[in-house]
Amino acid sequence: MRQVAILGVAMTKFGVSEKTNLEMFAEAGLEAIARSNLEPKDMEALFFGNCLGDFEEGQLHMAPFAHAELGLPVSSPATRFESACATATVATRHAALLVGAGVYDVVIAGGTERATKMGTPLATRTFAMACQAQHESAAGITFPGVFAMATHMYSHKYDIPLKNLKRHMADVAVKNHYHGSMNPKAHFQKKIDAETVLGGMMVADPLQLFDCCPFSDGASALVIAEAGKAKDLMKNPIFFAGMGQGSNGPLYIQKDLTRIRAREASALQAYKQAGVGPQDIDVIELHDCFTIAEILALEGLGIYDFGTAYDAATKGETALHGKKVIVNPSGGLKAKGHPIGATGAAQITEIVEQLRGESGPRQVDGARIGLVDTLGGDFGTICNIILRS
Amino acid sequence: MRQVAILGVAMTKFGVSEKTNLEMFAEAGLEAIARSNLEPKDMEALFFGNCLGDFEEGQLHMAPFAHAELGLPVSSPATRFESACATATVATRHAALLVGAGVYDVVIAGGTERATKMGTPLATRTFAMACQAQHESAAGITFPGVFAMATHMYSHKYDIPLKNLKRHMADVAVKNHYHGSMNPKAHFQKKIDAETVLGGMMVADPLQLFDCCPFSDGASALVIAEAGKAKDLMKNPIFFAGMGQGSNGPLYIQKDLTRIRAREASALQAYKQAGVGPQDIDVIELHDCFTIAEILALEGLGIYDFGTAYDAATKGETALHGKKVIVNPSGGLKAKGHPIGATGAAQITEIVEQLRGESGPRQVDGARIGLVDTLGGDFGTICNIILRS
Repeated sequence: MRQVAILGVAMTKFGVSEKTNLEMFAEAGLEAIARSNLEPKDMEALFFGNCLGDFEEGQLHMAPFAHAELGLPVSSPATRFESACATATVATRHAALLVGAGVYDVVIAGGTERATKMGTPLATRTFAMACQAQHESAAGITFPGVFAMATHMYSHKYDIPLKNLKRHMADVAVKNHYHGSMNPKAHFQKKIDAETVLGGMMVADPLQLFDCCPFSDGASALVIAEAGKAKDLMKNPIFFAGMGQGSNGPLYIQKDLTRIRAREASALQAYKQAGVGPQDIDVIELHDCFTIAEILALEGLGIYDFGTAYDAATKGETALHGKKVIVNPSGGLKAKGHPIGATGAAQITEIVEQLRGESGPRQVDGARIGLVDTLGGDFGTICNIILRS
Repeated sequence: MRQVAILGVAMTKFGVSEKTNLEMFAEAGLEAIARSNLEPKDMEALFFGNCLGDFEEGQLHMAPFAHAELGLPVSSPATRFESACATATVATRHAALLVGAGVYDVVIAGGTERATKMGTPLATRTFAMACQAQHESAAGITFPGVFAMATHMYSHKYDIPLKNLKRHMADVAVKNHYHGSMNPKAHFQKKIDAETVLGGMMVADPLQLFDCCPFSDGASALVIAEAGKAKDLMKNPIFFAGMGQGSNGPLYIQKDLTRIRAREASALQAYKQAGVGPQDIDVIELHDCFTIAEILALEGLGIYDFGTAYDAATKGETALHGKKVIVNPSGGLKAKGHPIGATGAAQITEIVEQLRGESGPRQVDGARIGLVDTLGGDFGTICNIILRS
């Protein structure tokens, strides 16, 4: 496999938008191409992510229309990927694999989602279709419910009183909102305190409002090229070091909700390919759809031993200028926002900008190796990408 | 790129089923694996196709659940592809590319769709979401409408009176139903005559009922492996010779509905890679969603010059034992049926069985090279695969 690099990256401001999925993707995609010192005609393929365009806008089969908005050649195929919240990470992984294989030299990947239009209660119900419909949806499962169960299991398994655990989870929210306050593209840019989190409306016991990420609108895109060509085009391409993807079935075959086995399999692939371990990672964008999810991810990725990440944020180990590793400097899904099909590409965008030293007030000093972690569904899909400068 | 082969192939009977998407896919997938003399644990990845599971069964993110039904390992990623009717062909192309690249040695690809459950009128409206929503769906466009317009344009452009053209189109339906009468997996297994076609209910002027393929339920799957490994496992693997995929945007940038530019780009890629031309093809499964679509495909694929394929069926050139090239021996979408996300894999299944000489009464004598052609949406996606024995 050839060495593969990322050139230009871009994302729209995340939040509530009146733009369509295609308009948002065009904005991000054209910016990513321009930043790569390339033109749309140079893109040899589009790896496009979107989850629920059919429910949001009556739009299935969005890839060729995104292709048209960007003005790509007819001979450059556009392919839609859907892996729930991991959609754009999975699309990017496939793009990088095919550039590595020599099938393409330069491609564009990314995703878009207009998640707010249907309103939060209906969106919660609708995106719950990423759970197993026959067995789980019929039982009333939604994502807040799944992560609420995981929180209870974590508390029980590691004998951490729920009240204490919730206090530590609140510190995850405080940290990520602090990071988001330095990100002009974030959905939420206001700092919060733990009291706000612990005083929030109950969503799914024990998860309260500020334990949950928002639904957001937004798009993100990145240009991927063979490393030699990338170096000719840009002074600071960022390189793919390792990638992984794992899958696991419905909750009824996942015995322990505190161990996301698909992540453990995926991270192992990525670390092995990159020839690095958890201790080598300088900065991480991980899937904090709920505060407990950040804790589970830190353990599944091997950054912390199982049962020990719950107080990482409280101890200041994961915040900017923290003592261990900087986690979600963008604000994460929690504060930057979560436009489902765009999220993975925005995580990659953040890591690329961090590794380039372009992150302004939230820059992680001396970041050389970064990790992206995206979860799809109730632990059904995980995709990891390790990048290096 | 390494040489890549197809091992076991399988499809459910197409038609109306009470089984879920996942149950149908499990049936086809496990049969394809067994026929490959392999076990589920040997599958290193799943390339899964489905279009509208969310509308059909409230199921998004179906790939990891299909993965679970097959019993695949957690480290084998499952990825959903959606390219409207070309979904499973696009999934298969990506699978073959990644096996060719050495990312995987053995994978499974395919698709499933439960298209009949919502009933034909609602399904027509719902699958029309594969047109461009903002500009086309709002104007009331559905697929019968698009192909009706293409029929009028063909009649006008080549100065063929509509009445004559319709008679020739009826002969396409007669041929494909004749082929379907020999296919025990086909949705429709009854021969029809031209009078039946021309006497059918009007759907979208000038397309009548028997000009249109049905919505069907069904699944299809195939196992793909590196050629050396394939030869060790099976006495008659079938080899990928060439592949192509092209994309084109909304109808408003497609000036001439008789020329599907994405197909011309895709077919060129496939022929070039295979080192063969249209004259070398022995058997074709192409996208006859409407009778006119078979005529457009024969021209776009270079089998006939533009404006000359309209009477190919009438002259008996494309039927079994025909004089030029055998087209849709399975019965095509027209008679075999069209479970959207499964169709491409079933086309491949037919070509593989033809090249193996396993097609019984509908066997194409001496077939050595076969072509698959699948169209997604209103000309937005085309994927072509050339196979050889």
